[in-house]
Amino acid sequence: MTMTYATYLTGDDLRQVHEASLEILERVGMLVRNEKAHALLARHGCLSQAGSPLVKFPRKVIEEFRASMPPTFTFHARDPRFDRTLPTDAPVIITGSSAPNLIDPVSGKERRATSEDIARIARLVNELPGYDVFSISTLAEDAPPGYYSLARLMPTLKNCLKPLRISSLDEEDAGRTLRLGALVAGSEAAYRERPFITHHTCPVVSPLTFDMDSTEMLLYYVERGYPYYGSIVPNAGLTSPMSLPATLAQGNAEFLAYAALTEMVKPGSPLIYSTLPTVADMRTGAYAPGGIECAMLHMGFAQMARFYNVPCGGYIGLTNSKVNDAQAGYETGMSVVAGLLGGVGMFNMSGLLDSLLAFDFAKAVIDDEIAMMLRRLGRGFEFAHSAMALDVLADVGPGGTFMFHEHTVEHMRSTNYVPTLADRDPREKWVEKGGLDTQARAMERVRQILTREYDSCLAPEVEARIRAEFKDMVRGDCLPPAEWAK
Amino acid sequence: MTMTYATYLTGDDLRQVHEASLEILERVGMLVRNEKAHALLARHGCLSQAGSPLVKFPRKVIEEFRASMPPTFTFHARDPRFDRTLPTDAPVIITGSSAPNLIDPVSGKERRATSEDIARIARLVNELPGYDVFSISTLAEDAPPGYYSLARLMPTLKNCLKPLRISSLDEEDAGRTLRLGALVAGSEAAYRERPFITHHTCPVVSPLTFDMDSTEMLLYYVERGYPYYGSIVPNAGLTSPMSLPATLAQGNAEFLAYAALTEMVKPGSPLIYSTLPTVADMRTGAYAPGGIECAMLHMGFAQMARFYNVPCGGYIGLTNSKVNDAQAGYETGMSVVAGLLGGVGMFNMSGLLDSLLAFDFAKAVIDDEIAMMLRRLGRGFEFAHSAMALDVLADVGPGGTFMFHEHTVEHMRSTNYVPTLADRDPREKWVEKGGLDTQARAMERVRQILTREYDSCLAPEVEARIRAEFKDMVRGDCLPPAEWAK
Repeated sequence: MTMTYATYLTGDDLRQVHEASLEILERVGMLVRNEKAHALLARHGCLSQAGSPLVKFPRKVIEEFRASMPPTFTFHARDPRFDRTLPTDAPVIITGSSAPNLIDPVSGKERRATSEDIARIARLVNELPGYDVFSISTLAEDAPPGYYSLARLMPTLKNCLKPLRISSLDEEDAGRTLRLGALVAGSEAAYRERPFITHHTCPVVSPLTFDMDSTEMLLYYVERGYPYYGSIVPNAGLTSPMSLPATLAQGNAEFLAYAALTEMVKPGSPLIYSTLPTVADMRTGAYAPGGIECAMLHMGFAQMARFYNVPCGGYIGLTNSKVNDAQAGYETGMSVVAGLLGGVGMFNMSGLLDSLLAFDFAKAVIDDEIAMMLRRLGRGFEFAHSAMALDVLADVGPGGTFMFHEHTVEHMRSTNYVPTLADRDPREKWVEKGGLDTQARAMERVRQILTREYDSCLAPEVEARIRAEFKDMVRGDCLPPAEWAK
Repeated sequence: MTMTYATYLTGDDLRQVHEASLEILERVGMLVRNEKAHALLARHGCLSQAGSPLVKFPRKVIEEFRASMPPTFTFHARDPRFDRTLPTDAPVIITGSSAPNLIDPVSGKERRATSEDIARIARLVNELPGYDVFSISTLAEDAPPGYYSLARLMPTLKNCLKPLRISSLDEEDAGRTLRLGALVAGSEAAYRERPFITHHTCPVVSPLTFDMDSTEMLLYYVERGYPYYGSIVPNAGLTSPMSLPATLAQGNAEFLAYAALTEMVKPGSPLIYSTLPTVADMRTGAYAPGGIECAMLHMGFAQMARFYNVPCGGYIGLTNSKVNDAQAGYETGMSVVAGLLGGVGMFNMSGLLDSLLAFDFAKAVIDDEIAMMLRRLGRGFEFAHSAMALDVLADVGPGGTFMFHEHTVEHMRSTNYVPTLADRDPREKWVEKGGLDTQARAMERVRQILTREYDSCLAPEVEARIRAEFKDMVRGDCLPPAEWAK
């Protein structure tokens, strides 16, 4: 991007945060609930006492493993045209993920999500140009036993060619996920060449605690060399101090610990400085990822990521709203613009209402438009002397019009993002068309997309191989809701 | 603000825009439709041929008058506590203004606005903490002949103590406006001390044309030493070339011409680099102030304003939407955040739907919340070593909670903006409270504010003086709509 980012912290502030983080890790330390991680840390020079989960990180350990953190992270797709690399391809736009619920597209009521819903969501995300990566938006309530991730992946693989992101539950689930990848790719070796599923967990529970299962998944994937990254999620007032600088320092310490652990497992493993930093609403203790402070903390973490020369991003653009109203619009819109102008590279921004609790089809369409606006903002001015078009201005002259000038015709498709959802009609025309608000227009688009016919993104023989091995596999076809079909 | 702004243009780019603007003014020139301005420009070294409105500006003329542009601009209020100075008090948040229509707060239908509406709007703006300056939001359809501005000012003066901004029609209207100011202040001298009405027009019609009447108002107020500034409003594809750099160069040339004229009238006159730059939607020619390109151009003009060391801002955060839906939220929210992080100091951002056509009460309440979030974003991190609260983190320790720590209690009112409109309830609670969207909650607030009783902001003897002189003056009291009174 041709832009100098907005920054809150001076170079000296950044060094102070770095130093404070080292001090936190060295003096306060972290609880490490995962025994393998505990042993690995001890083996690499961290300090702990027998029988205690508390581990202290001498600064030289952090500095040593900092050195091997790579500056890029690639999201692979089955088709290399859809690969996306951070930071080169920033902004990389991703759906928000793992909501337990969904707003039913017909009834408008919240309910548990199923693999049939995931098929529709995957298809929608495949068709919407704003999205680079599909982080599977919901859980699948109908997953057969042992199919926790498979029931999410099958509908996704059949309907979406973009890179995928998912969180595994445990070793068994992870093993089946890798096996599915190999079946789709043709072999384990072929899948290793192009590992189109990126894995994610939150290995640190703030404050300063490596959790058991999420850390296990970090070890599992990084050991085997499959794409993985973790997110750091401090919540000021509850799990970090009620201060932006303090939450930055603690979160940065947590990032450094997770990064060092990753690099200990396998030096040179790619990672992302990924965060979801929030400030709690202390009136009720409410989780508030729609608050502007979440965006500000992202800007701060983006500065730290540049300090370490690693790619960054995370969950940004969430909303606390339950519906697609003005709040949903301004909370998502304000945060992602602050993030982009602050240098955030990856945006898990889309499709969710009620913070992380419910996927909504219309929200995904609305956020696609916001994502396209964000891309335009990121593309910048494309300044060049010739772009000032002094000859065109001289040609048209004072008081003239540019409407019919060939320069206008030539540049009208590239100068602005031409919205496909926003209403720009005169009021009479808007009324005539039904006076629909953005939610209603977005649902029309959902219906258009989901009532088309699509070929499966999995070849029949691949699907047959999968079903031969995983007998209880869900169908995974994208079918419109019964009320829409005819 | 403790922030480094996001920038699109390098120092070299800025110099190129400046040079291009000088070249435009010197070679292409401007049409000057106002004869007084034409004569004034000629007297100060600009070039024109007898009988032609075309005026060319030698670069030394621009450079000469550039030198006297002051770096600050103050919006005065009747009560000095409400004074706001740019750039010191940035972001300075102002209502969007002069809409002909209004969405009726009871019926929800669009209709012409009257002085009674203005009384309600003025009271609302007075009560909402997000607003610094009230730029009178609508026209008054019920204005008696000769009372074009007076019918807007009377309800405003009775209901709002914040600094006011208005656009006068002609000399007669302007004279009556100044007379009203003197009557309120007690004397002309007292009003001169504290000129609480700031005047505004758009003196340049793009491309490169000084208009007759708006320029007349510039001359009128600047000559007399009353606060005035103008806005530059190029619309790429129609009134400027279809290119952001070209629109920046042309708009900057227009700003320099307006600024030079202002300084010729009276050297040292304060001004604002104020803009409303848009890119037309060429599918229909629609005016699109909600497009993200409007915000990008504001960021570019803010860089030019810093290059010249003058305060900047303008109309930013407008929406094309007809209702308070997601589009209204994201268009306003995205633009103002981009503006703030790009260094825009003044935001005419609020209360309007359908670009500049209709005031909406709920929109004003929603934008107040956006304004408060913007202020939080502008306040920044307030970084200090002590703010990292390392002792608090050590005290709570890994795995602990900050919820009950006294540090949390101490900082919970300052760390985050605590929203008064946004919904952060759990879904069940939100449903229980009526499942209201932002529009409905905002209208509840409007009703609460407008059904309270208020003292007039004008002393009875001052009002008597005004009515003695202006016999047909509108009442200007803030009364709730009949349907709300009980």
